Amino acid sequence: MSSYERVTAHVDNPEALREEGRRKMDWALQHMPILQSIREDFEAEKPLTGETIGMAMHVEAKTAILVETLALGGAEVAVTGCNPLSTHDDVSVALDAVDNVTSYAVRGVDDEEYYAAIESVIDHEPTITVDDGADMVFRIHQEHPELIDSIVGGAEETTTGVHRLRAMDEDGELNYPMFAVNDTPMKRLFDNVHGTGESALSAIAMTTNLSWAGKTVVVAGYGYCGKGVASKAAGQDANVVVCEVEPRKALEAHMEGYDVLPMAEAAEEGDVFITTTGNKDVITREHFEKMQDGVLLANAGHFDVEINLDDLDDLAVDRYEARDGVEAFEMADGRRLNVLAEGRLVNLAAPVGLGHPVEVMDQSFGIQAVCVREIVENGDEYEAGVHEVPDELDKEVAEIKLAAEGVEYDGLTDEQVEYMSSWQHGT
Amino acid sequence: MSSYERVTAHVDNPEALREEGRRKMDWALQHMPILQSIREDFEAEKPLTGETIGMAMHVEAKTAILVETLALGGAEVAVTGCNPLSTHDDVSVALDAVDNVTSYAVRGVDDEEYYAAIESVIDHEPTITVDDGADMVFRIHQEHPELIDSIVGGAEETTTGVHRLRAMDEDGELNYPMFAVNDTPMKRLFDNVHGTGESALSAIAMTTNLSWAGKTVVVAGYGYCGKGVASKAAGQDANVVVCEVEPRKALEAHMEGYDVLPMAEAAEEGDVFITTTGNKDVITREHFEKMQDGVLLANAGHFDVEINLDDLDDLAVDRYEARDGVEAFEMADGRRLNVLAEGRLVNLAAPVGLGHPVEVMDQSFGIQAVCVREIVENGDEYEAGVHEVPDELDKEVAEIKLAAEGVEYDGLTDEQVEYMSSWQHGT
Amino acid sequence: MSSYERVTAHVDNPEALREEGRRKMDWALQHMPILQSIREDFEAEKPLTGETIGMAMHVEAKTAILVETLALGGAEVAVTGCNPLSTHDDVSVALDAVDNVTSYAVRGVDDEEYYAAIESVIDHEPTITVDDGADMVFRIHQEHPELIDSIVGGAEETTTGVHRLRAMDEDGELNYPMFAVNDTPMKRLFDNVHGTGESALSAIAMTTNLSWAGKTVVVAGYGYCGKGVASKAAGQDANVVVCEVEPRKALEAHMEGYDVLPMAEAAEEGDVFITTTGNKDVITREHFEKMQDGVLLANAGHFDVEINLDDLDDLAVDRYEARDGVEAFEMADGRRLNVLAEGRLVNLAAPVGLGHPVEVMDQSFGIQAVCVREIVENGDEYEAGVHEVPDELDKEVAEIKLAAEGVEYDGLTDEQVEYMSSWQHGT
Amino acid sequence: MSSYERVTAHVDNPEALREEGRRKMDWALQHMPILQSIREDFEAEKPLTGETIGMAMHVEAKTAILVETLALGGAEVAVTGCNPLSTHDDVSVALDAVDNVTSYAVRGVDDEEYYAAIESVIDHEPTITVDDGADMVFRIHQEHPELIDSIVGGAEETTTGVHRLRAMDEDGELNYPMFAVNDTPMKRLFDNVHGTGESALSAIAMTTNLSWAGKTVVVAGYGYCGKGVASKAAGQDANVVVCEVEPRKALEAHMEGYDVLPMAEAAEEGDVFITTTGNKDVITREHFEKMQDGVLLANAGHFDVEINLDDLDDLAVDRYEARDGVEAFEMADGRRLNVLAEGRLVNLAAPVGLGHPVEVMDQSFGIQAVCVREIVENGDEYEAGVHEVPDELDKEVAEIKLAAEGVEYDGLTDEQVEYMSSWQHGT
Repeated sequence: MSSYERVTAHVDNPEALREEGRRKMDWALQHMPILQSIREDFEAEKPLTGETIGMAMHVEAKTAILVETLALGGAEVAVTGCNPLSTHDDVSVALDAVDNVTSYAVRGVDDEEYYAAIESVIDHEPTITVDDGADMVFRIHQEHPELIDSIVGGAEETTTGVHRLRAMDEDGELNYPMFAVNDTPMKRLFDNVHGTGESALSAIAMTTNLSWAGKTVVVAGYGYCGKGVASKAAGQDANVVVCEVEPRKALEAHMEGYDVLPMAEAAEEGDVFITTTGNKDVITREHFEKMQDGVLLANAGHFDVEINLDDLDDLAVDRYEARDGVEAFEMADGRRLNVLAEGRLVNLAAPVGLGHPVEVMDQSFGIQAVCVREIVENGDEYEAGVHEVPDELDKEVAEIKLAAEGVEYDGLTDEQVEYMSSWQHGT
Repeated sequence: MSSYERVTAHVDNPEALREEGRRKMDWALQHMPILQSIREDFEAEKPLTGETIGMAMHVEAKTAILVETLALGGAEVAVTGCNPLSTHDDVSVALDAVDNVTSYAVRGVDDEEYYAAIESVIDHEPTITVDDGADMVFRIHQEHPELIDSIVGGAEETTTGVHRLRAMDEDGELNYPMFAVNDTPMKRLFDNVHGTGESALSAIAMTTNLSWAGKTVVVAGYGYCGKGVASKAAGQDANVVVCEVEPRKALEAHMEGYDVLPMAEAAEEGDVFITTTGNKDVITREHFEKMQDGVLLANAGHFDVEINLDDLDDLAVDRYEARDGVEAFEMADGRRLNVLAEGRLVNLAAPVGLGHPVEVMDQSFGIQAVCVREIVENGDEYEAGVHEVPDELDKEVAEIKLAAEGVEYDGLTDEQVEYMSSWQHGT
Repeated sequence: MSSYERVTAHVDNPEALREEGRRKMDWALQHMPILQSIREDFEAEKPLTGETIGMAMHVEAKTAILVETLALGGAEVAVTGCNPLSTHDDVSVALDAVDNVTSYAVRGVDDEEYYAAIESVIDHEPTITVDDGADMVFRIHQEHPELIDSIVGGAEETTTGVHRLRAMDEDGELNYPMFAVNDTPMKRLFDNVHGTGESALSAIAMTTNLSWAGKTVVVAGYGYCGKGVASKAAGQDANVVVCEVEPRKALEAHMEGYDVLPMAEAAEEGDVFITTTGNKDVITREHFEKMQDGVLLANAGHFDVEINLDDLDDLAVDRYEARDGVEAFEMADGRRLNVLAEGRLVNLAAPVGLGHPVEVMDQSFGIQAVCVREIVENGDEYEAGVHEVPDELDKEVAEIKLAAEGVEYDGLTDEQVEYMSSWQHGT
Repeated sequence: MSSYERVTAHVDNPEALREEGRRKMDWALQHMPILQSIREDFEAEKPLTGETIGMAMHVEAKTAILVETLALGGAEVAVTGCNPLSTHDDVSVALDAVDNVTSYAVRGVDDEEYYAAIESVIDHEPTITVDDGADMVFRIHQEHPELIDSIVGGAEETTTGVHRLRAMDEDGELNYPMFAVNDTPMKRLFDNVHGTGESALSAIAMTTNLSWAGKTVVVAGYGYCGKGVASKAAGQDANVVVCEVEPRKALEAHMEGYDVLPMAEAAEEGDVFITTTGNKDVITREHFEKMQDGVLLANAGHFDVEINLDDLDDLAVDRYEARDGVEAFEMADGRRLNVLAEGRLVNLAAPVGLGHPVEVMDQSFGIQAVCVREIVENGDEYEAGVHEVPDELDKEVAEIKLAAEGVEYDGLTDEQVEYMSSWQHGT
């Protein structure tokens, strides 16, 4: 059924691309202490020997280090993209040159080619799947159910993918165990607070050449992303206003010294608006009508529905590119409201956007790697369906990172363990 | 069996005491916006009419406002202390003068009198109990099981009390429903992070007349209390070092920019050590041996076992009161290690210690008040045993506080509720 | 003319007092690394041999360490108080027992006794004077001009004293050189930013039992004191509002993320008001009229004129002590405005106030000590009049503190010195 | 002598360029509230009528707004670049199209053309000069002394230019008054603390795709730039280490809670090194030898001499571009030290570098504009030579910015002015 050829068949001058891709991978690896440590162990112990891993993920430098790590662990790995526009061809070629790795990812393919590449991965008859958006696991269930018996398990990276898998699971149609890597405490904390917090702010600064000091920054949503954005913006001397709908989160923000306002009031005061709610219509017509000339509107939440661009377009008498990555909407009264990155995730979609910092993906991919190892070692202990990542694996990755960074910490004595246990569970 | 007389029988010049107690209560009330709001509602609606509430709590100004609030809600309230040394006689007398309140609490009573006072409360035949340490509920189960049938439920304030109740519950010996007020998200966050964080630091500063700027402050434990202490100390320009045993918490502290060290290394660097672990033997002989001359040792955790004073005494060639609330332990080599408040909770036990700030107790007692109302309104829906405070009550208290502080925040539109719901629960 | 006897003649049980005073001094010394280091040098080198030092300062533990340091440096020291109410008799007695020190300071003396004690100090025929408020230097000029010829110089601790000396100087009536210790960069920075910042906040917290988290704190004045108070309050999770009259300072506060408002608007928003301007009538009738019920009013500036208490009294229908150190002014509409420490310096005048932290005074008294040494060594190079503390002495104290704290830092190579010099002064 | 033609003669398709340049200028103007306000006044009052202004500055969007403002004030303006590589041709063409402005700046010209363009500006016979590096004022003195009589004065933007002018002044060879715009408190504070602080960090993050959270960031130098970098890095949850040579600055950093270390020790601990000293050889061979694999080395000081690249090259066995803007130096033991932007100013020289944020230049150019107005109005009151910007002008720009941002602040009453004055100057 599939005859899609590995990436090298699709690109010119693969050797030059390979070198460039390798250089990018080397940079990433240099700053991924967790995967550095895991690959050393994997290389020494080959825990994945005999497994075939089918992957559909964004093929760029950071992910490539995960792919290479799995191959070094003894697995045969076949990989393709999970989005036709996110592949870096140079990295794809460099990956394909790694022993035991075949890459089918090519940038800019059409729908047919995209699925042909997935089919080519499936042709390898994976025993484990690793997804970013659940395309691979979905395709296998739909088109290749005969393979499921030999699949031990898989892992899914994203909220969206986990959402899709849970829906399958609820319908009784997910037929092997999948780890929801997205939901671990480690990932949520570091990815959201630090990753989104930092990268949203630097993407906005670099897209606009504007400063944070003295700006009123309105942060919509005070979940993990919102807390990160608020704290990092305050750390750059911005005056932060928080908008929330949940009273305890609103109170938490208030007790941490932030101004808490409804968006209808914040709209009049803000210089920069950053949405992080995961909901739609967070900023709408009634808010646009009150905003000052020159405000920036950016989304660091999830989809491009948080800022209602239809409302904004309705109000605008003119819209034009004010700067790369910035579209100005001019109101009848002359005010200009500037939307960054079309209201899509600003740290990814802005022209200067690099996505999450390397270290944040190291954390997340470290969990992926130990999950794959867990599937190999104990996969038969997990029933078909979506599984939380076991606490011990999340903790192990924290331990690896601390060791890699040379951070030492205390252990408990037996007496202390007993004391805590007697205390918690009754005498 | 009990013939213990109300507090006025035990004190001289009750009228002068009453005025002084009332002044203290008025100060507290002025800064308890949640209870202010609840008492207005209670006064208007009298939701507790017909109930008798038996309470054993620290009888001081803040608690007194809770007692008064319950009485204003229509209940008859009988109260005594939960610790012979924590009663303020002036407040006890002022409480006793409140309509529908009888107070038996007297400072400095002996064991016999202490229990006689509890018995006197029980003589009122409470339909609801409110405890700080579970003494009341325990006594009723042990000595007055015949009353249990008419008791609708109760609430317990502290970790220790909840621990005791869970043990009873596990043995099948807790015969009416009890709310574990201690464990709500609101209480944990505000009480531990803000309450302990702030009051531990100001108690240390005022006990020692020393400054935080430029000091190396070692915080043992990075739970809610530890986070509060670390953040507030950094906010006073201290250089904070964190000691932890759980790798994810250690990593969290590291990622927030703190130095993370084992105590054996931190011992050499610290100027001030603050324990917040809830465990024992956090600072022991091997650490004392390495500390610098003049260090401060304080506990903001729970019991006085975190700093091992036996080890310290063994090492000391001399010990003397260096200052009110500070005991110096002099080592053979001349170094002086200064223990604050005998290693007991420094924000309570230091001579200047005032316990938690008024606003923190307002939060906690606000939850108590709505729990009591819940018991009256829906008590029959709860089985005997320990219950978490329902999320909705915790949330209601947050709403009351935001309203009282004049903080407005957003609501969700129907479309937004639907969007989130479709997203979270599958399409 | 003077026959005032040393302190021991005025107190009961001097030996018990001496022990108590010594204990206080030992605590201070333990936390004064700068004076520890200077006294070691002074003891070894006796640079003050042959001098007689006459001092009028607050006789409490921290100052006592300075007095003792000067005596250890070889000087004969005679000391008395600079305010009849600030003397600690126990410290005064302990000081008097130090070799080469005579103390005349007694708490609670009347005017006549106060000046008699100063005269007794002058009877020692000082060759150097050290003042806190210029009483000693003023008395000598007025009553004992014959002594001036043998006086090499002096040092003055406070703003007020320096102000008085400059007035004398301008009138050509200051007849020996005086160092204005108050004005050094080191003193201003550490004393004002850290000392006032920290101690004002902890004094307010401990006087009121209230919390900072989530409070709106209005800081009037954004000089060094105001910056310290603002930064430390924000560090305790308060929401800080700054009021200023100088546009560049107002802009500085704005650019650092604070809300900047005129007092007329801040009055409506604040929960706590802290004045640090050094000016009068910063908070007046028009502001009191707008404030919320329960606000706190405190002064961390200089005199008790920043908050206009006459205006407040005019508006009040009742005033009463709401708590030790807190006077409530009740308005006709029931609002209560709470003034701390009678509007005097809250970190000193509040009942719990301990003044500046020990380390801050160590810095300040370290400069005093090297100034006295400078007078001995190079006094003849200074003309009569007020002198800034030479930059090198200020720097020396910084070096001593860094060495005492074990903080190492870099030096410049010869090439670097040359590079900077060529750059700054032209090629 | 000069026959260099205005910019349009040198570029293709000037109309398309003009539109693009105008778009860039509009973006800048939208975020320059100070110049917005000044140009309104200038347009209304035409204070510069009759003057001819000769300028040599970086011709990019932000500067262009200053040029346009001066033209709107009634002056005829001739402008060229101050560096052949910093001109944006689109902006130059857009400027040239502004009424009363002639632009000669073209990117990438050779030396001869560069000076011919300056000559063309001089051909306009300026009565006022505005420089960035003093090229214009220097050329006039050297080649066209006959023009000096009709020149009223000038302004210089940079440290380097002021340095050059002071050297001329000391030699008695600066023959008209020049304002040293670089040195005002406003510029130093906002430009260095906020401008350099923010832009250095975001340039580093965007060049490397790395994160700040949990990183050890070594800041060399604790002047205004160093303070800005340290504070903003801590605000992104980095662990900051400060290196200093001046003991009082070292102590200031220590008292603010930073680790202070000599570079020889910091070298072992740092993940990122940022130099801000203005000196040379801040990081040298002995430091490189101790650094960890993967460290980042960046300069936010002045020249590219702070990090000794010769030493680094000597030690390296290989050097290669690891990433755009990052050169890796590989040591014999395999460690890779990554130098950003060739050790030149990272916020300018990195490929993603945008220089200072718009608002920072608004501040600086606002001072330029009021200085030019001052020259016109009161130029004859200034003698030939370098002049500090009068305090009142610096203050005026702060007032304009506060008004533009809608920030209100207090004024002093007459009584307050009198009180302060009596206090400061003696009664």
